[in-house]
Amino acid sequence: MKSVVILGSTGSIGTKTLDVISRLNDKFKVIGLTCDSNAELLLRQIKLFNPQIAAIRDVSKYKALKDRLGSSKTKLYAGMEGIIRVAAHNKSDIVVIAISGSLALAPLLAAIKLSKKIALANKESLVMAGELVISLAREKKSQIIPIDSEHSAIFQCLNLTPTKLVKRLIITGSGGPLNNIAKSSLHKVKPKDALNHPKWDMGKKISIDSATLMNKGLEVIEAHWLFGIDAKNIDVLIHPEAIVHSMVEFIDGSIIAQLGPTDMRFPIQYALTHPDRFNSHNGSLDLTRIKNLSFKSPDFEKFPCLHLAYEALSMGGTSTAVLNGANEELVHLYLKGIIAITDIPRYIARVLDSHKVKKSPDLEDIMEADRFARSTVKEFLAKE
Amino acid sequence: MKSVVILGSTGSIGTKTLDVISRLNDKFKVIGLTCDSNAELLLRQIKLFNPQIAAIRDVSKYKALKDRLGSSKTKLYAGMEGIIRVAAHNKSDIVVIAISGSLALAPLLAAIKLSKKIALANKESLVMAGELVISLAREKKSQIIPIDSEHSAIFQCLNLTPTKLVKRLIITGSGGPLNNIAKSSLHKVKPKDALNHPKWDMGKKISIDSATLMNKGLEVIEAHWLFGIDAKNIDVLIHPEAIVHSMVEFIDGSIIAQLGPTDMRFPIQYALTHPDRFNSHNGSLDLTRIKNLSFKSPDFEKFPCLHLAYEALSMGGTSTAVLNGANEELVHLYLKGIIAITDIPRYIARVLDSHKVKKSPDLEDIMEADRFARSTVKEFLAKE
Repeated sequence: MKSVVILGSTGSIGTKTLDVISRLNDKFKVIGLTCDSNAELLLRQIKLFNPQIAAIRDVSKYKALKDRLGSSKTKLYAGMEGIIRVAAHNKSDIVVIAISGSLALAPLLAAIKLSKKIALANKESLVMAGELVISLAREKKSQIIPIDSEHSAIFQCLNLTPTKLVKRLIITGSGGPLNNIAKSSLHKVKPKDALNHPKWDMGKKISIDSATLMNKGLEVIEAHWLFGIDAKNIDVLIHPEAIVHSMVEFIDGSIIAQLGPTDMRFPIQYALTHPDRFNSHNGSLDLTRIKNLSFKSPDFEKFPCLHLAYEALSMGGTSTAVLNGANEELVHLYLKGIIAITDIPRYIARVLDSHKVKKSPDLEDIMEADRFARSTVKEFLAKE
Repeated sequence: MKSVVILGSTGSIGTKTLDVISRLNDKFKVIGLTCDSNAELLLRQIKLFNPQIAAIRDVSKYKALKDRLGSSKTKLYAGMEGIIRVAAHNKSDIVVIAISGSLALAPLLAAIKLSKKIALANKESLVMAGELVISLAREKKSQIIPIDSEHSAIFQCLNLTPTKLVKRLIITGSGGPLNNIAKSSLHKVKPKDALNHPKWDMGKKISIDSATLMNKGLEVIEAHWLFGIDAKNIDVLIHPEAIVHSMVEFIDGSIIAQLGPTDMRFPIQYALTHPDRFNSHNGSLDLTRIKNLSFKSPDFEKFPCLHLAYEALSMGGTSTAVLNGANEELVHLYLKGIIAITDIPRYIARVLDSHKVKKSPDLEDIMEADRFARSTVKEFLAKE
């Protein structure tokens, strides 16, 4: 039985991870849980899974939660320090990083330093600090198994094939909820429509990123770091049915693709059980019912975020941290109804322009670039 | 540089293998060639590739060919003995079995006995004698890399994954040239129309097998032996675009598929270069141009040959040799205009019914079953 810690257990990936573990009777034991601020759900999860340790980032909710835990044996911590304490629990075999956004970076690095096996659902950490994360993981022999359906697909397609045999990675995307909306109407799209993803049930941040195709851009950057492939050899392909989760083309022209139901429990289970596979209780894919799979090129003009991501990756250094920080800030502003969805790429481009790139950044440089991006977004907005 | 022997070098797969080798400068050296009766083409190939040894099965053409070879250093042999002598050439690293039909079996076994690495394009040998071939290959540590596009695809998808993690193999097929012809019109189909395959450029025998879907049936049997998967876990899926060459579903619901251009030079090159891959000079697949991939279940009523193949495999022993022998004989009779294409499954069913299955057959039992099938076909025909 393997011991698992889940950081971000109350979110979309976190709850599905607990679901997968519950169905894989006696294969995994949950020994650590953390959440951002959803104390109610964390309490239920603690009662159900009896972890040795748990943490809530929102310090203001610590006391009440602690009281309600009563005689539970679970040790409860608070704040980012608490999260990192759970990430670094010395008894875990696998650390699932299901925290959304840049907040995942510090606990991820803490787990890597202890040579943990990582199941990584967070993409922002690699977008911000890919070079740092991957070189530390290599040094500490910490294996990172991606949970993102696209990167799980590529990981499965590669199946340890050496990078020199790879011609290109083909990251597929459904095209998101705005795929069929005219470019001229994009600026009017309300958050509730942008959140209405046709294929995937996901958190809010990633749903908006899917609507702007920034999600695909972040995935290109993530794939670059995870698999060591140049950006020019990573393509994005729109595939509305979301059945082919990504592909690898080898130098001899052979393409290996991974297909599966549109359900994150599949890549989550794979990340937990790798290199083994266990029977799934989540159904099966029937191509005779799906009948058709379609493919087309992404529209870079309609979705400038995708181009910005490639650009930031080619600029290198702190550029992708700036891209990510500005994007995260702008998505929140869009969700609050303060800006239009088309403002997101417009401001990101301006923030990238005004940033002086630092090459081979350390963690402090990256956090500084992140702060720069966020404050510059606010500055620009205040002036308009 | 690896030394290659090609049995059946003047056929469809043989000529493409020489094409692939010519393009892979200095990676492979052709040291043996054989043909059935196309002396003209074999002569040209000998002059071009200067093999150490060659053979022509048709003894009547030996003398004239020998004379025309003049001062060539290539040693020329004749008859089945000559073919087997080339198959067993002690200097070869890879033996390509590109002979069509049951004639491939003896030279295949000869090469396996010498622990050669086999690139296998012939499916009839495994259909007739799968148990024998695979157990001998295991004993002699002779590795068999399939060239058939479907089995090459499955081989690449598996990429050494243990069989116990496989839920099912999904063998795709374009549906063949008769896919869109009504069942009621099938009996009128002329050989020239049945030979007109929409996707693949192939030899005559396999083209007719594609038209009756017997080809998929033979592939199911071949896959059973190559990959050790039960027939009930091998499905056939009609995929008219012939881009996905086959798939593997694992027990956790993840499907790995292999895609590529519809060109046998891709699986041929893979079989030669495996486990390495080299740059291909045969173009690349662009899914944004193909746009759509479609899938449907095969029509077992319209194409009874497919069902007969599953049935023969479940009957086991000599049944598949009988299926194969009867089919080969009937395809020749159809090509000669003697029977209708719909007579093929009708007679196969009758021959299978009249055969007494021998379990765990040795080579003599298999050859006897083959002779039984062929003579019984003729007997039935003579009586009608």
